[in-house]
Amino acid sequence: MKLTINKNELNEAIQQVAKAVSSRPAIPILGGIKIDVNHQHVTLTASDTDISIQSFIEVEQKDMIIAHVDKPGSVVLPAKFFVEIVKKLPSEQVMIEVSDSYQTIIRSGPSEIQMVGLDPEEFPVLPPIEQNNVLQLPGDLIRSMIRQTILAASTSEQTPILTGVLCNLHDGVLTFVATDRHRMASRKTKTDTDETMSFHNVVIAAKTLNELSRLIPDQNTMVDIVVADNQVLFKIDNILFYTRILDGMFPDTSKVVPQSYVTEITLNTKEFMDAIDRAYLMSREEKTNVVRLSTLDEDMIQVSSSSTELGRVTEQLEAKGLSGEPLRIAFNSKYMLDVLKVIDSEQLVMGFTGPMRPIIIRPTDHDYSTYVILPYRTTD
Amino acid sequence: MKLTINKNELNEAIQQVAKAVSSRPAIPILGGIKIDVNHQHVTLTASDTDISIQSFIEVEQKDMIIAHVDKPGSVVLPAKFFVEIVKKLPSEQVMIEVSDSYQTIIRSGPSEIQMVGLDPEEFPVLPPIEQNNVLQLPGDLIRSMIRQTILAASTSEQTPILTGVLCNLHDGVLTFVATDRHRMASRKTKTDTDETMSFHNVVIAAKTLNELSRLIPDQNTMVDIVVADNQVLFKIDNILFYTRILDGMFPDTSKVVPQSYVTEITLNTKEFMDAIDRAYLMSREEKTNVVRLSTLDEDMIQVSSSSTELGRVTEQLEAKGLSGEPLRIAFNSKYMLDVLKVIDSEQLVMGFTGPMRPIIIRPTDHDYSTYVILPYRTTD
Repeated sequence: MKLTINKNELNEAIQQVAKAVSSRPAIPILGGIKIDVNHQHVTLTASDTDISIQSFIEVEQKDMIIAHVDKPGSVVLPAKFFVEIVKKLPSEQVMIEVSDSYQTIIRSGPSEIQMVGLDPEEFPVLPPIEQNNVLQLPGDLIRSMIRQTILAASTSEQTPILTGVLCNLHDGVLTFVATDRHRMASRKTKTDTDETMSFHNVVIAAKTLNELSRLIPDQNTMVDIVVADNQVLFKIDNILFYTRILDGMFPDTSKVVPQSYVTEITLNTKEFMDAIDRAYLMSREEKTNVVRLSTLDEDMIQVSSSSTELGRVTEQLEAKGLSGEPLRIAFNSKYMLDVLKVIDSEQLVMGFTGPMRPIIIRPTDHDYSTYVILPYRTTD
Repeated sequence: MKLTINKNELNEAIQQVAKAVSSRPAIPILGGIKIDVNHQHVTLTASDTDISIQSFIEVEQKDMIIAHVDKPGSVVLPAKFFVEIVKKLPSEQVMIEVSDSYQTIIRSGPSEIQMVGLDPEEFPVLPPIEQNNVLQLPGDLIRSMIRQTILAASTSEQTPILTGVLCNLHDGVLTFVATDRHRMASRKTKTDTDETMSFHNVVIAAKTLNELSRLIPDQNTMVDIVVADNQVLFKIDNILFYTRILDGMFPDTSKVVPQSYVTEITLNTKEFMDAIDRAYLMSREEKTNVVRLSTLDEDMIQVSSSSTELGRVTEQLEAKGLSGEPLRIAFNSKYMLDVLKVIDSEQLVMGFTGPMRPIIIRPTDHDYSTYVILPYRTTD
């Protein structure tokens, strides 16, 4: 293998795939990045046991020569050093030459780097995925759906399935759901897909979705999603992102949200978030994060928290709407803050069916998002 | 005590003194910020065992009323919560009222916060410092001197004196020196001081100087320095910064720099730093950070490093000047990088008296800074 390639293009592709390299690889070869070179493409691949990322560099792009290939071939290079050194090479051009024993020489300006490469045949082969049923969505929509649900995923490995986000496609509606049994977040979107296409119980690790989110560029990009038996493939421009589907059945959350409420409160999202934030500061001193919410007269509500050592925070807010019975309820203010930070609506409505029943939070602008927080049982 | 004060002014002063609050205070009162209010000033004070910071807010500034004082007084408020909550108060005005039992009420817009305050009489009194001999220096000069020396201070508490920077004033010249016995950094400056004023063996913890550095604003500010028996006071605008002088004798470093060299090399600082940076990346894989430097023919030098598992980096650079005997020397590339990052000169000159003797590094633009790195003994 021998080629000369533009440093910035190479570096960008390396940074993209590097996210799939484990810092503690299960086998040494997974600590590397595989480079495959032919006369059309330079392909970089990295993989840990859960995700694999592949990035393609076209040798010629819009009449620009990005890479000059002298000899096709493949090699696996140790990721940690390779990722850092390419960034810092002195010239815009990088020459990479690999001998039969995978001994690799990288030259750039006055720098010469010799690296011990590994046999690319040892690198795991990516799963073949039939690309019949492709679901296409705008990248920023996927990013929003991820951001608005992963907050409720569990971080405990005790129930692995709850560390994931459930993705269902049914009647053209894609739904993301996450829950750690104390709270739930759900986000829907209508897709243009043929209504015969559907999938169920596709659960993807929240941390994987977070990585995926970072790979989706800010500008308008369409993302292709292909669901296979135990893998999901996301195609973003020149990147293929493969992730494993988590094993197990995701709990049924369809009955969590009640049909009607005893009390409903409409609030300005920012005002409520700021008040909860101040109450949270006091509540976290007690570790429990307990904040109380009570309805007062004349459309006012009160948010309060206290700490035996430190004192007490009391906040009064005017509700934009308040109907039903008076209410006193306590909840984890950190959970509430997590929800309020991702609500993309100037106002929100909270629904209650009693002090020991789930709190339902929804934006007022649309009905795509639903958040649920279980209250605390308190003696007060 | 009762006053109404501008939130931003209060917040700024809190952030300034908060740097002196220990996260694990030796006694509970040191986990607090003391507030003293009279009809002219609101004074905030925080202190750990090593440093104390005091910030003054003038009640009236340029015909602006910053604070309205109803009743003078003092209180100590728990820092951690107080620092966070003031930032997040909803209104531009903050009312603080303290009862006889130090129970404190803070009101801002619709927020009410009750805090358990502590008795200000329990707060340590700051040392009285006679301000006869004041050394005045521009703030950005002090920041540079700190930045260009603290890199060489020890981080090991085994020899506490070496975790500090030695400050001497002699014949109107102020000198900062730091060393961890493997390297040394020294920075001088000529001052306008009366030449009879002098001090010696004033050693201030490097981490304290780092904190001081952050308190000095970017714009042109003069800083007053007052050295007392076991304390140094820095006055920066409305801030007083007190620090303890470290106990012990700082080692004599005056003989470290030789009078003449066997080999001298002049290099472009940026080019040399980039080459060392790439060699460092490989050398750190071996934990030792060993990089070798050799002179070649025709004013060229070579920088190289290797790792048994990973490979080898070789860099060739053209020297801007090269005189004396050929040289092969090895050193810690991390130490060299630390020096190269703070050299404020386009070119530098390195002086050598042999492969086992100290490496001297100096900017070519001026003679205020000197850096010394001890070489490695290597078998190669």
